[in-house]
Amino acid sequence: MKTGLYGITYPKGFYAASAAVGLQKNRDDMAMICSEVPAVCAVLTTTNKVFAAPVRWDREIIEKSPMKRAVVINSGNANACTGEQGYQDSVATAATAAALLDVNSEDVLVSSTGVIGVPMPMDKILCGVEKLAKSLNNTAQAGDAAAHAILTTDTVAKTASAEFCINGRTIRLGGMAKGSGMIRPNMATMLSYVTTDASVDAEVLRDALLRITEDTYNMISVDGDMSTNDTVVVMANGLAENETITSLNSPEGKLFYEALYNVNEKLATDIVRDGEGAGKFIEVQVSGAKNKNDARALARSVAESSLVKTAIFGEDANWGRVLCALGYAEADFNPDASELVFESANGALKLFSNGVPLPFSEEEAAKILAVPEIHILVNMHLGEAKATAWGCDLSYEYVKINGEYRS
Amino acid sequence: MKTGLYGITYPKGFYAASAAVGLQKNRDDMAMICSEVPAVCAVLTTTNKVFAAPVRWDREIIEKSPMKRAVVINSGNANACTGEQGYQDSVATAATAAALLDVNSEDVLVSSTGVIGVPMPMDKILCGVEKLAKSLNNTAQAGDAAAHAILTTDTVAKTASAEFCINGRTIRLGGMAKGSGMIRPNMATMLSYVTTDASVDAEVLRDALLRITEDTYNMISVDGDMSTNDTVVVMANGLAENETITSLNSPEGKLFYEALYNVNEKLATDIVRDGEGAGKFIEVQVSGAKNKNDARALARSVAESSLVKTAIFGEDANWGRVLCALGYAEADFNPDASELVFESANGALKLFSNGVPLPFSEEEAAKILAVPEIHILVNMHLGEAKATAWGCDLSYEYVKINGEYRS
Repeated sequence: MKTGLYGITYPKGFYAASAAVGLQKNRDDMAMICSEVPAVCAVLTTTNKVFAAPVRWDREIIEKSPMKRAVVINSGNANACTGEQGYQDSVATAATAAALLDVNSEDVLVSSTGVIGVPMPMDKILCGVEKLAKSLNNTAQAGDAAAHAILTTDTVAKTASAEFCINGRTIRLGGMAKGSGMIRPNMATMLSYVTTDASVDAEVLRDALLRITEDTYNMISVDGDMSTNDTVVVMANGLAENETITSLNSPEGKLFYEALYNVNEKLATDIVRDGEGAGKFIEVQVSGAKNKNDARALARSVAESSLVKTAIFGEDANWGRVLCALGYAEADFNPDASELVFESANGALKLFSNGVPLPFSEEEAAKILAVPEIHILVNMHLGEAKATAWGCDLSYEYVKINGEYRS
Repeated sequence: MKTGLYGITYPKGFYAASAAVGLQKNRDDMAMICSEVPAVCAVLTTTNKVFAAPVRWDREIIEKSPMKRAVVINSGNANACTGEQGYQDSVATAATAAALLDVNSEDVLVSSTGVIGVPMPMDKILCGVEKLAKSLNNTAQAGDAAAHAILTTDTVAKTASAEFCINGRTIRLGGMAKGSGMIRPNMATMLSYVTTDASVDAEVLRDALLRITEDTYNMISVDGDMSTNDTVVVMANGLAENETITSLNSPEGKLFYEALYNVNEKLATDIVRDGEGAGKFIEVQVSGAKNKNDARALARSVAESSLVKTAIFGEDANWGRVLCALGYAEADFNPDASELVFESANGALKLFSNGVPLPFSEEEAAKILAVPEIHILVNMHLGEAKATAWGCDLSYEYVKINGEYRS
């Protein structure tokens, strides 16, 4: 299997476009993804009870049929808390795109991200949809430009790709995502799109995406807040002409699952690496937990702790805060049996074992923490379950970005 | 009823002392509270699975009998994650104090707050216990000095008092607390001590404290982390010689409950006002919720949201973040029925009603947010239940304090 940095236009038959319509200053702020032929889609959306208008539209049309042709995305305005008018705006966006692409409205997914509670400037949006439909292209550049157009406070575009063979057929996957602030476990404030030319059964695709999301998007945290707009989309158009994958347990199904997992893990961790104001990337590996749910809860509790995040920002080996965060997770945890290690490219240091702190050199700890990627390893010694969560430090910059977001 | 700013020595028969033993730099870092006669006590401790050695000791002795005589408190070292030796250190602290006060070890509660995972310097502690036992005094000054000695990153001492009459008998209550960082709903990282000369049945006292804690200490948040050491203690020594209160539903019981509530609410909100790096105090009032649990969950979700906290720090009326935090609370919430108001000494502004944002003047919003105390009022229009949560903004200063805590 090959993984790489191509984006959504990497698989056969996927086109992308981007445009600047003035929702954000001096940059592209709308994007479109379009498949040459109808694609089997799986869509997961936010669990927040306040969900944006495009989320309502996507849920309605995906329930009717998994076959979709296109996605229209805008950044700069979330179209959330905008009432019935906001919903009608999403419908009109889909209808306009559909007319231009010669498909049905219900074949077009819509996503929005940006400020909450501001009416959509529909003249700009519809004008943008027309520009997008006219400039669709299957080049790597078009995919890359789309990945930039969906960003808000992100500082870099996030793309991923993978490639593998089934019976002589090459299957490709490509993806793009935006995230940054408001990311929390349970899949929040981010948009993610993965395209593939694999032929996959709709149920199998949905099942794979649900499982993968549990271990990727639901295990990342920037600030603990969950958004109104998060959406994860996978589109599979079948143009690789492989025999349709009907089970994740077949050799082909396993290969496909692995590739889809890799692309989504890359996108999810890229979102954390680019967390608002993040200077350090934190990976929390929990092993020896009683069961998978416990492992996830423990890993997330550490990755979400403001005190752990500020300690890592300060390059301070304050392992007590890790213990403390494990202690309030809703999961079995016996401090007297557990083991805690801080690790980075500069070495590893065991700090706590069997209920007691171990003596350590502050100098060595400082060296380990002086790099941009820190791993916190915890063995619970209670069972066999493992989970990994990803977070970032909490910095002055985070406060600055979020204190002044609307200005 | 009279409320005021006296501390733990305000009720009859309570003595206090403080001492500097070198656990913190150039300041008092140990305190003692002592009742002239055995006092009925109620004690609540952290729900964190990692709990400090003194918490274990307090739980053990309160289970044996509610009658206690004294509390020994140190700041600067949490005696948490210190294994069996840490527990023995708490036992020795109680035993030393008991010998000096001529009571039993099991009459002496112990509390610690400070850094996790560092062995207790027992020579200093035991020397401090001796100093404390010898300098007990029932003056207001002694109470105030004790309130200062228990502080860590706090910037001001927190004290409270109340006074009322039952059948010609004056009942007094006094209290002190420390908090600041690591405060979260579910009673975390803080110490609180309330003394009273009321005569109260032990069961009734415990019941009152449980109910009051739900609406005070469990409704405050500084950073969402829950600590290993939090302890709330109420001591009632009966020296006011009132007829023993045996029910919270009697007229006397109601008066006592109200006074105890007021003292604890004052201490709890003082902790938030002094939150690490806090520049603004945020009160979230939820009304019209379906039930009390929902009301609490909704209010806390807003008060705990990093994005709401940074918006208030930036004096930005970003009400979408409030809606968003309500939306991910585990409680019934219908955005289309709810109503949102920002309020301060400078006025009130309705920002959202019936599912749609209301037009507002940014200038007026800025004026309302330009003061140190902000109220966020949400009416859910789903029922009759109410709850209030208190939080503070998230500032550069918070990151600074917690990034450099151990240095």
